[in-house]
Amino acid sequence: MRTEVTVGIDVGGTNTVLGFVDAEGRCLAESSVLTLAHEPASSFVSRLTAKIKELHAPLSDRAAIVGIGIGAPNANYYRGTVENPPNLSWKGVTPLVALFKEHVDVPVVITNDANAAALGEMRFGAAKGMRDVIVITLGTGLGSGLIANGELIYGADGFAGELGHTLVDPAGRWCGCGKRGCLETYASATGICRTVFEMLCNSREPSEFRDISFNTLTAKMITEAANRKDPIALAAFEYTGKILGMKLADSVEHTSPEAIILFGGLANAGELIFAPTKRSLEEHVMAIFRGKVKLLPSALPAGNTAVLGAAALSWTELIRTR
Amino acid sequence: MRTEVTVGIDVGGTNTVLGFVDAEGRCLAESSVLTLAHEPASSFVSRLTAKIKELHAPLSDRAAIVGIGIGAPNANYYRGTVENPPNLSWKGVTPLVALFKEHVDVPVVITNDANAAALGEMRFGAAKGMRDVIVITLGTGLGSGLIANGELIYGADGFAGELGHTLVDPAGRWCGCGKRGCLETYASATGICRTVFEMLCNSREPSEFRDISFNTLTAKMITEAANRKDPIALAAFEYTGKILGMKLADSVEHTSPEAIILFGGLANAGELIFAPTKRSLEEHVMAIFRGKVKLLPSALPAGNTAVLGAAALSWTELIRTR
Repeated sequence: MRTEVTVGIDVGGTNTVLGFVDAEGRCLAESSVLTLAHEPASSFVSRLTAKIKELHAPLSDRAAIVGIGIGAPNANYYRGTVENPPNLSWKGVTPLVALFKEHVDVPVVITNDANAAALGEMRFGAAKGMRDVIVITLGTGLGSGLIANGELIYGADGFAGELGHTLVDPAGRWCGCGKRGCLETYASATGICRTVFEMLCNSREPSEFRDISFNTLTAKMITEAANRKDPIALAAFEYTGKILGMKLADSVEHTSPEAIILFGGLANAGELIFAPTKRSLEEHVMAIFRGKVKLLPSALPAGNTAVLGAAALSWTELIRTR
Repeated sequence: MRTEVTVGIDVGGTNTVLGFVDAEGRCLAESSVLTLAHEPASSFVSRLTAKIKELHAPLSDRAAIVGIGIGAPNANYYRGTVENPPNLSWKGVTPLVALFKEHVDVPVVITNDANAAALGEMRFGAAKGMRDVIVITLGTGLGSGLIANGELIYGADGFAGELGHTLVDPAGRWCGCGKRGCLETYASATGICRTVFEMLCNSREPSEFRDISFNTLTAKMITEAANRKDPIALAAFEYTGKILGMKLADSVEHTSPEAIILFGGLANAGELIFAPTKRSLEEHVMAIFRGKVKLLPSALPAGNTAVLGAAALSWTELIRTR
């Protein structure tokens, strides 16, 4: 008997990664194609489905593809579309699921990458067995996926879980979304860089960053400097965690999750970000929730996270309808 | 054939109201008992179940009781308990569902009053047919019930939906919960009274409230004064709506509801509170949600709301398990 696998696909600005994932989260094969988003989406889908067939050929006697799950920026689960993605040049609404259906006859489902990550953690990772969980991705921006009653919250329009754009300060930093003071302008890889520069102005502390330009600075450099005890870098992590924990307290008061999972580049800084976030969450959350919510790192293998998340999306749909 | 009804029970500080409600939300009979919470909860349940039998006797040939739903302060859905309620003198954890089961052999289920109200609106009221909705009760405090994917969010511990204690200002007003700057210290019947007194200090506007003590002032008086164009009363509604809309924008970014329903004493002020709340919500919410979320008043009959909500809770459980 052949093992059932779903194809997990993560559409990125440059590369699109894909993998065959079984029901236990084992990745049987993996590959990637260039996204080349300046070309029409239809040719992207042709190249991608050809790659799936090529990858499947040597496995065809032991693996059966039963579904496809796609994680993509600005993806709409209900409509099967990608809508005005900020980092891809597909304009307007791209019917990505419909394009796939021209090539394959298995169920195809799509959501954004943070939602896929949340389903991945629930099915294969740190949230296994949990029914209420929030997954936060701390990358260039702050993405989030909310799970309640064992199901991902898509909301009325398919765009639920935009915690990166909840409000920290109405007079705060300008955000790429057009608003001011959004959480992701503070708690993200770019947010912590902005914080370092704010601190360079406000304080008189010495710092290795006083010789570095805004465009050169990265979150990784701040992590390394914090590990060398650079005072500005340490203070920037403290401040980032304080803001993030304060807003996560609000989120706990919405859905009361068993755990919050932090994930992505900035989360790799470990205790530098986890410790102040946890402290601030406990300080700001209502007494009945205090000491209850676990703050956990991702438990998915680092290189495979996005593919496992997208594959988990497909498994979740298949299991619901079987 | 007898009509199936559930018993909806709303446990209040002074009175406990009950009613028999059919699957369409018609109330066939109604009554109340004194809560007398200084007595043991077991005697309360004895009196209440006796009242149910008394109320059922003349209807027994045409109505069959198939379930009991209870709305009570600090009720825990998972455990069937009421835990340290602020306005009732039952200390610690009261196993209210277990106490009922000593007297009746139908399913008994409990949740807090705001969650019951949310289920009532979804089954019988303004949210009929909606799968994603937030219900806000603007009473002495601010209660909330969140529905996503057609299901109430109870969260990991049964206490989800505490939007009244999300943070407006870390250096803001002290809240009964022990925190500072909680939403309900601004957006509630008591919140708007506090706002009036803040405005009496800060402004030099004349106002009829300059001759009234803090303890005498009520939200109803502020509504009446606003209708007479008292400038402080009008400004207080504007400010309350601004804060409420700003925080509801955060909530939309969590669960992306089709509608938000405002409910309870302060919501009865109508456009005085709806207009500034809607304006602020639209101003603060992320562009992709703008113009999408309906802000609606309750569509449950005013006197029956709590009973219908509690009955809806029971219907929801029965329908799920049938």
